[in-house]
Amino acid sequence: MSKCLLIYSGGMDSATLLWKLMSDGHEIETITFDYGQRHSAEIDCAQNMIEYIKNHNMNIRHDIVDVKPIFAHINNSALTNPKIIVPDCHYTEDVANITVVPNRNQILLSIAVGIAASRGINTVMYAAHSGDHCIYSDCRPEFLDSLNETTRISTLWHPVTIEAPFIHNTKADIVKIGLDLGVPYELTRSCYNAYKLSCGTCPTCIERKEAFELNNAIDPIQYKEN
Amino acid sequence: MSKCLLIYSGGMDSATLLWKLMSDGHEIETITFDYGQRHSAEIDCAQNMIEYIKNHNMNIRHDIVDVKPIFAHINNSALTNPKIIVPDCHYTEDVANITVVPNRNQILLSIAVGIAASRGINTVMYAAHSGDHCIYSDCRPEFLDSLNETTRISTLWHPVTIEAPFIHNTKADIVKIGLDLGVPYELTRSCYNAYKLSCGTCPTCIERKEAFELNNAIDPIQYKEN
Repeated sequence: MSKCLLIYSGGMDSATLLWKLMSDGHEIETITFDYGQRHSAEIDCAQNMIEYIKNHNMNIRHDIVDVKPIFAHINNSALTNPKIIVPDCHYTEDVANITVVPNRNQILLSIAVGIAASRGINTVMYAAHSGDHCIYSDCRPEFLDSLNETTRISTLWHPVTIEAPFIHNTKADIVKIGLDLGVPYELTRSCYNAYKLSCGTCPTCIERKEAFELNNAIDPIQYKEN
Repeated sequence: MSKCLLIYSGGMDSATLLWKLMSDGHEIETITFDYGQRHSAEIDCAQNMIEYIKNHNMNIRHDIVDVKPIFAHINNSALTNPKIIVPDCHYTEDVANITVVPNRNQILLSIAVGIAASRGINTVMYAAHSGDHCIYSDCRPEFLDSLNETTRISTLWHPVTIEAPFIHNTKADIVKIGLDLGVPYELTRSCYNAYKLSCGTCPTCIERKEAFELNNAIDPIQYKEN
């Protein structure tokens, strides 16, 4: 199995991908982007998970990449601008419009490719899934295909490919994969808000709870609303 | 004329493009990336040029975007790693291999697109030229075409296009354009090294001097070697 660099947010999707890659026998390095996101508790979760894995006798390289100085220049999203309020509702086009960070995935994936190339790693993995497609154009399969073509030209001397193994899976599919693999979901977090406990009412909390319900499973994290 | 965001390094190529865009009547905003480059004197030049333009009664927005925390993770290039020595010779493939910052242009252009989108600007300009093509794959027209397709998908809600007006021009062509427009080249700098005066012997100094010679013109900056 080849070595890969996983973009690991600390949320449940990328945690499941981390577990799947380990289970498939990949050698893995991980990076977490700190872009001043409202949900910075995710970064703590990422670190706790890597620590958990270490305590189970597996060392995984984990670096936090500070992209705050960049996103300080791109701050018209509710995810990075504290003056904009995250709505309490399901994902809609309006929600997407205020939570989208313009060109975020292209920026973060390009950086990951640069880091991978500089370490001689040929594959970047990230956990985009099909539920993201209709909301964020930079999570769609055609975006990934196009970005891979751009990256092929850009990295002729250090070839890097980007893979999104969950791109055709729903959030419920991901939870199913993770439950089968025994992912410790109590160590993950998805909420868009900055509370100590997940709010349970923002779009990503609603989506997470639904994904567990569809698997007749209980989400092990605590919610503020409960 | 539409508004555009120019990636302005402080070097002679992007200074010439700045002058050309002003001359063509574009409304312009500029950004300079600080990626911990050895040739940080370029950033001072960028600021001096914007000040010069201001003294000639034109205010151009200029922001410095700190990408050092990112490139700290991608430091196997002579341009950002002080332990690697820049050779004293003309550009060759070997020089390219040690001066290339993996995926640099894709990273910087993606960030510029994000900034443009967040400000409602639809065009990003940068000064890649034909001399770069054989050396750096991420300066080639096919890279730009592919990146524009990726960007089209990524920015559906805030459409941004990237243009490189000099992509089919040589460095000598650029100097000719700049001399005709009266670019104050004494305020630009191109050297890869960190000396107060440009070294005159690194690949980019050699290329710059040749471009002036081919125009039977005198480069107004001072070189250390003289």
